[in-house]
Amino acid sequence: MPPEIAWHRLAGPVACVDVGGTKVAVAVADRQGVRAQRTEATAKSGTPMALAEQIQSLVDGCAHEAGLAPDGLLRVGVSSCGPFVLSQGLIELAAPNICGGLAGPARGLPNNWMSAPIEAPLRQRYRAVRVENDGIAALEAERRWGALRTQGAQGRALSHCAYVTWSTGIGVGLCVDGHVLRGKNGNAGHAGHMYVTSHGDALCGCGNVGDLEALVAGNAVARRFGAEGFTDAESLFAQARAGNVRALAIVDELAVTMGRMLYNITASLDLERISVGGSVFWHQRDLLLPRLQAELARHLPPLTRGCEVVAAGLGPQVGDYAALALVMD
Amino acid sequence: MPPEIAWHRLAGPVACVDVGGTKVAVAVADRQGVRAQRTEATAKSGTPMALAEQIQSLVDGCAHEAGLAPDGLLRVGVSSCGPFVLSQGLIELAAPNICGGLAGPARGLPNNWMSAPIEAPLRQRYRAVRVENDGIAALEAERRWGALRTQGAQGRALSHCAYVTWSTGIGVGLCVDGHVLRGKNGNAGHAGHMYVTSHGDALCGCGNVGDLEALVAGNAVARRFGAEGFTDAESLFAQARAGNVRALAIVDELAVTMGRMLYNITASLDLERISVGGSVFWHQRDLLLPRLQAELARHLPPLTRGCEVVAAGLGPQVGDYAALALVMD
Repeated sequence: MPPEIAWHRLAGPVACVDVGGTKVAVAVADRQGVRAQRTEATAKSGTPMALAEQIQSLVDGCAHEAGLAPDGLLRVGVSSCGPFVLSQGLIELAAPNICGGLAGPARGLPNNWMSAPIEAPLRQRYRAVRVENDGIAALEAERRWGALRTQGAQGRALSHCAYVTWSTGIGVGLCVDGHVLRGKNGNAGHAGHMYVTSHGDALCGCGNVGDLEALVAGNAVARRFGAEGFTDAESLFAQARAGNVRALAIVDELAVTMGRMLYNITASLDLERISVGGSVFWHQRDLLLPRLQAELARHLPPLTRGCEVVAAGLGPQVGDYAALALVMD
Repeated sequence: MPPEIAWHRLAGPVACVDVGGTKVAVAVADRQGVRAQRTEATAKSGTPMALAEQIQSLVDGCAHEAGLAPDGLLRVGVSSCGPFVLSQGLIELAAPNICGGLAGPARGLPNNWMSAPIEAPLRQRYRAVRVENDGIAALEAERRWGALRTQGAQGRALSHCAYVTWSTGIGVGLCVDGHVLRGKNGNAGHAGHMYVTSHGDALCGCGNVGDLEALVAGNAVARRFGAEGFTDAESLFAQARAGNVRALAIVDELAVTMGRMLYNITASLDLERISVGGSVFWHQRDLLLPRLQAELARHLPPLTRGCEVVAAGLGPQVGDYAALALVMD
């Protein structure tokens, strides 16, 4: 169910860039639709400029394939994993799964970068550049084409809402009073690193012990429950479906823990709807969605009544539309 | 250290109303300063309109004392405890400590109100009315006169910040990207009802079991630790200062628990400064502030570096200036 993209409303050719911990994906589109796409493994060696150079090379390659000069691109939208830092007001990536200088030698990354510039080099080359963390970009996609809209052909984006990715990690994008929240360094939405319980032993990729992502993200299952024979999220859910009582109890715990975060952002931000996607959630949404809804409803009715939890309208494709949402009018 | 109020910048006479669970305080001010003040115990009997009628009577009384007709008031600002509900887009109070219909008979309130209208009746009587929850109003005061500004005579309000009241309850006001967050019913900032740990047995006034307010608010000390001889926050802190090891351990736990909420909102909203006030915090700030700062710094440096925790610039007077901040230009 790909959404109908109003390509004809693009004022000119655009590039959409998705930067993740394992791959960088680029597409160039114009009023006729997507014209070229390229994907590479994320650059992690060389100078700290290597990532920006890779993005430029992929964008220029796609532009060339589409018969365009790089300066023919009207806009470049970048949806990137975070966190970010600002250097002279421009966004650099400071993600411990890419920058070896942040991660430390134990992680074995082939670089010692403390950050990787993105916005400054892209602004030198392209006319207009917008960089957002991938939680914000996914939120923009769900507000434009997905579940964070009012119904019908004249639907409009909701004013008070969140998009939550439940995948290898936990990402969030937030909108309050019609304003998409960015924060001082563009890092608003890192609610996956909240503390919601006292379960103390799980280590998160970010270095936190016992935060939400450490407890419920896809890669947490093996770490927390591998010794009990649940080697990944898929096998855990398969055994829960087969009636394994312990597996079902773990699924309940994961949903309650994630549900607490949904409650926390609802109480803090007075939201009207939360859309949930991501690979862990999407494949198990029949089990997980009612549990998340029940956990939210269990708390403080004046704050949670009137806030729905729904499955992502763009389904497993939210990420594919995230960068595109940044360059649409 | 009352702030310098630029009374001469008021375009005309205003009324400031503070609605709490125990009292309603009203002041009328004009370009010469405060002209009249009145306080009464919060109306809790009669029809659901009793509270609005009380506010009107206090405002009109103050206006009369200042030699003004009620329609001579340019603006009325109301800082009220929450939560709120909207009726036809206008704010009504739905606080379980005032509305007996919400609290249930166990609470013993002398009314069965499900909500108490505020905004609609005040708008019928006065020219311009602004109602905000008290967390938001206190934030506005701290951004205008307190610690949530850049330094110096040309100081400006910070764009990414929070004000946290640590008192009988826990209240929060939030600002991101220069935008004060309100939410669908004006309830943004109820982060005091977040879940941050698994401590399971403490009951909050809101009905939640084990939320932040249930664990650390002033009235939680007797409930949680009364059996150990700590009958209120004051005696707990006095014994910690006298070297009681158990009391000090409890103080540490309270600060870590509150610090987790500060971390959670920082990670979620990418803040640059958090100002903390309220009676529990203010009297113990020498003990509590360094502990809160340490707890924030312990987590995820890319998100917490660059976010300061400071004591309220308006000190114990934040609440006194909250409603005034709503009617200043």
